[in-house]
Amino acid sequence: MKLAEIEKLLSKVGGDYVEDLKAVLKQPSISARGEGIDACAHMLRDFMKNAGFSVEMWKVGDANPVIYGEVRSSSPKTLLMYGHYDVQPPEPLEEWTSPPFEAVESDGRIIARGAADSKSNVMAIIKAVESYSRLGFDLPVNLKVLFEGEEEIGSPNLPRYIEMYRSRLKADAAVCFDGGLDPKGRPELWLGLKGMLYVELRCKTASVDAHSSLAPLIDNPAWRLIQALFSLRSPDGSILVDGWYDDVRVPMEEDIKLVEGIDYETLLTGLKKHFKVDRFLSGVEGIDALKKLLFQPTCNIAGFNSGYTGLGVKTVLPKEAYVKLDFRLVYDQNPYRLLENLKKHLKAKGFEDIEVEALNFLEPSKTPPSAPIVGAVASAASEVYGLKPQIYPNSPGSGPDYLFTKRLGLNSVWTGCAPPLSNAHAPNEYTTRESFLKGVLFASSIMECYSRL
Amino acid sequence: MKLAEIEKLLSKVGGDYVEDLKAVLKQPSISARGEGIDACAHMLRDFMKNAGFSVEMWKVGDANPVIYGEVRSSSPKTLLMYGHYDVQPPEPLEEWTSPPFEAVESDGRIIARGAADSKSNVMAIIKAVESYSRLGFDLPVNLKVLFEGEEEIGSPNLPRYIEMYRSRLKADAAVCFDGGLDPKGRPELWLGLKGMLYVELRCKTASVDAHSSLAPLIDNPAWRLIQALFSLRSPDGSILVDGWYDDVRVPMEEDIKLVEGIDYETLLTGLKKHFKVDRFLSGVEGIDALKKLLFQPTCNIAGFNSGYTGLGVKTVLPKEAYVKLDFRLVYDQNPYRLLENLKKHLKAKGFEDIEVEALNFLEPSKTPPSAPIVGAVASAASEVYGLKPQIYPNSPGSGPDYLFTKRLGLNSVWTGCAPPLSNAHAPNEYTTRESFLKGVLFASSIMECYSRL
Repeated sequence: MKLAEIEKLLSKVGGDYVEDLKAVLKQPSISARGEGIDACAHMLRDFMKNAGFSVEMWKVGDANPVIYGEVRSSSPKTLLMYGHYDVQPPEPLEEWTSPPFEAVESDGRIIARGAADSKSNVMAIIKAVESYSRLGFDLPVNLKVLFEGEEEIGSPNLPRYIEMYRSRLKADAAVCFDGGLDPKGRPELWLGLKGMLYVELRCKTASVDAHSSLAPLIDNPAWRLIQALFSLRSPDGSILVDGWYDDVRVPMEEDIKLVEGIDYETLLTGLKKHFKVDRFLSGVEGIDALKKLLFQPTCNIAGFNSGYTGLGVKTVLPKEAYVKLDFRLVYDQNPYRLLENLKKHLKAKGFEDIEVEALNFLEPSKTPPSAPIVGAVASAASEVYGLKPQIYPNSPGSGPDYLFTKRLGLNSVWTGCAPPLSNAHAPNEYTTRESFLKGVLFASSIMECYSRL
Repeated sequence: MKLAEIEKLLSKVGGDYVEDLKAVLKQPSISARGEGIDACAHMLRDFMKNAGFSVEMWKVGDANPVIYGEVRSSSPKTLLMYGHYDVQPPEPLEEWTSPPFEAVESDGRIIARGAADSKSNVMAIIKAVESYSRLGFDLPVNLKVLFEGEEEIGSPNLPRYIEMYRSRLKADAAVCFDGGLDPKGRPELWLGLKGMLYVELRCKTASVDAHSSLAPLIDNPAWRLIQALFSLRSPDGSILVDGWYDDVRVPMEEDIKLVEGIDYETLLTGLKKHFKVDRFLSGVEGIDALKKLLFQPTCNIAGFNSGYTGLGVKTVLPKEAYVKLDFRLVYDQNPYRLLENLKKHLKAKGFEDIEVEALNFLEPSKTPPSAPIVGAVASAASEVYGLKPQIYPNSPGSGPDYLFTKRLGLNSVWTGCAPPLSNAHAPNEYTTRESFLKGVLFASSIMECYSRL
C-alpha cells in the first residue's frame, strides 16, 4: 500500500530524481587515481541530508571517506544497506559514444561511468528514503547505510572502517545494493561474492632500454614475464600454483539446488551475444558454464605492458615489463595465504627476480539460502519487477561482503537496479530512467518486506 | 698531408660545424610516425649544397625522400656512402635528462635523439666534403652519397629507390656510415648486417572489454597471445618455428678468424656495466657470447600491450592484446620465407585466430674480409683514431646493407663515429664534440685511403 503511494509520487517527481542522479554521474569519482572522490562524497551527503538521513562523514587516515547515514523508525528491526560511490577508470576513452562524465541521454540510455556500477544504486536508496519523507511515512525498518569510496580498488580500507565503527553498525541483516537485472530484466540476488587477490608482477632485466640487437645477450623482461605467467595457468584456465584449490568449499549441495533454478541459457546466450563470442573458454556450455562462472577461481590478466606500444616499428629491448593479475577466489580461499603460495611458486620455478606487489585482498563470502533476508529481498524483487528473481548462490564478481558476513556476522544479500548488460567496467556504461526509478521502488520494497518477517 | 690540413681547419671552424649539427638534432625526424621528415631532409639538402655537393631530392610515391648528393673528382674511383637522417621515437620521455630534440650540452655530452644514430654520421660526411671545399682541395674519390629517411622503420622503400636509380648509383664500393666506437674508443667495422622480420601479432577475443568476473567463460586475449608466444621461443632464446635455421650459413671459417681478433672481453664487460646486467642470457661468456651476439637469430619482444596499464587496480578482461616482435636474421635467412613459416607454426599450434601483420623485411648481408674497401676503412680508422679497429664479420644490428651487396653487387663496410655506449634507441642518446669532429676526419680519411689502393 505504501509502495503504491511511492509509485504515485515517482510519477510526479521521478524527473527531478533523475536530474539529481545525473548530477552525481557528472561528478567523477575514480578511486584508482583519487579523482573527484571528496566532491562526490559531499554531493551525496547533501542529497542524503535533504532526503531525511542523519549523516556522518567517516574518515580514517587518508582513506576515501565513508558516508554513513541513519534513519530511525518505530520498527524493532535494523537493516544495514551498503553501496559504493566510486567508479572504475573510464579508459579507453575513444570507445565511448559520449564523454563518460557528461551523463548524455541517447536512445533512452543515460550514458556515464558509474551509471550502473553503482551510482544509480546509491541514489535509489537515497531517493527511497526521500520518498518516505516526502509522503510523511515512517520507514518500515531502522535503516543504516554505508557508502564507501574504494570498492573499485578492492575496498582496502573498509576493514578498518568496519572494525572501528563495529558497534554503530549493529544490525539484523545486510543488503548490499550493487547489482542489477539479468538480460531478461529479472533482478539478480547474490548470496555470496568471490574474493580477490590482485597483484602486479614486475620484471626488470637492465637499467635502461637497449637496442634490440642485444637480444642474444640481454634477457628480455617481457619474455621472462611470459615464461613466469605460462607457469601459473594452463590454457583451460586452471591455476598451476601448489595448494591453490586446497580451501575451496563450494559448490555445496544447497548451492547446486539454487543453480538448477537459474535460467542459465538466457544468461549465457546474452553474454555470447553481447561480447560477440561464439564459444566459451574450453567450449563449456549450459549448467557447466554457469557453475564455472560462479565457482571457478580465476587468474585474469587485467593489463600487460612492456616496451614500445605505439604505431609502427621500434626495435627496442625494453628494460622492464609488468602485468596486472586479478585472481578471483571462491569460498573459502584465503587471499593472504595464496599470495604466499604464489611467491613460493615463482621462487621454485626460478623467477625470484620477478617482483610481486599485492594491490588488493578480498576474502570470499557466503550467506545460506535459508536466511530470512534472502526471502525478504526475493519477495521485494517479485513484487516490484513482477518476475521471478534469479537467486545465485555465488556471484562471479568480488566485493567486501565478507566484512558483513565474517566480521559483522550478518546474513547478506547483494542485489540492485542496474539495467541488463549495462557495460559495467567497460565503455558506454549506462542506466535508464525506468531502471533507476524501479530501483527506488525496489529499495523501498526490500525494507517493507523485511519489516513484515 | 691533406688530413693534417683538415685537422687544422677543424680547430678553427669545428665550433661552427657543431652548431650546424645541433640545428639538425633539434629538428625531429621520427619515421615511425612521420614527424618532421621533410623539414629535416630540406635542412640537410641546404647543408649539402653549401658544402659543395650537387644535390637531388628523390621521391618515390609517398615514401620519405632520399637525399642524393654527388661530388666529382679527378680520381677514377667512385665511392658510394650511405647514411640515414631519420631517428627512433624518443619514448619514454620521462627518462631523458633533457628534452630529446633540444640538443642540450651537459657534462661534455650533446644529448639528443639521433645524436649518435645517425645524424652525427650524416653531418660528418657533409662536413668532410665542406672541409675539402673550404681548403680548395679536389676530393680524393668521386663521391656519391645517399641519405635515406626510413632506416629506423626498416627501410621499406629503399629497395624501390635502389631499383629505380640503379644506374646513378654505380660505384666501386660502398661505405655505410651508421656506426661508431666500441667502449675503448676503437672504431668498429661491420662486414655484414643481420636481416629483420618485424611483425605485430594481434588477438581479439570479444567485441568490448568485459568485467573480469567473466574470466571463467570469455577467453583473455593476453593469455592467448602468451600461449602463442611461449610456443615460438624457448627460454634460452632459440626459436621453435620449423625450418627457422635451415638457411643459416654463418659463421664461416673467415668469420671465426675475425671474431678471434676482436677484444670481446672489453665489449662484453662494457655491455654488462652499461646495462647493469650481472649475467648474459643462459649465462654465456667470452667468445661464445660474442659469437651468439653476432650470429644468433633472435626473437625479441619490442612491445606488448593489453588492458589497463595505468596506476592502481582495474579489474578488466581486455578485448584485445598485441605484441611487436623483431626477429633478427643471419646470412642467408630469408624474411619472406620465414614469415610463411611463422604463420604455418601459429596455425599448426591452434592459433589461427591470431592475426599476423608483417611491418618490415630486411635480408641479411655479407662482405668478404678480403675486399679492398675493408682494408681502406681499416687503415683510415687506424690513422684517425690511433687504435686498432675492431673488425666484425657481422653486426648484431640490422640495416639495408643487402641492397648494396646483393642488389648493387658492391662490397660494403659499415662504420661510423658515434661515441661508445651512446644510448642509441634509448633515452639520453648522445654524441660529443670530439666524436663528431673525429668523424669528419674519419670520413675524409676513408676517401683518402680508398683512393690510394
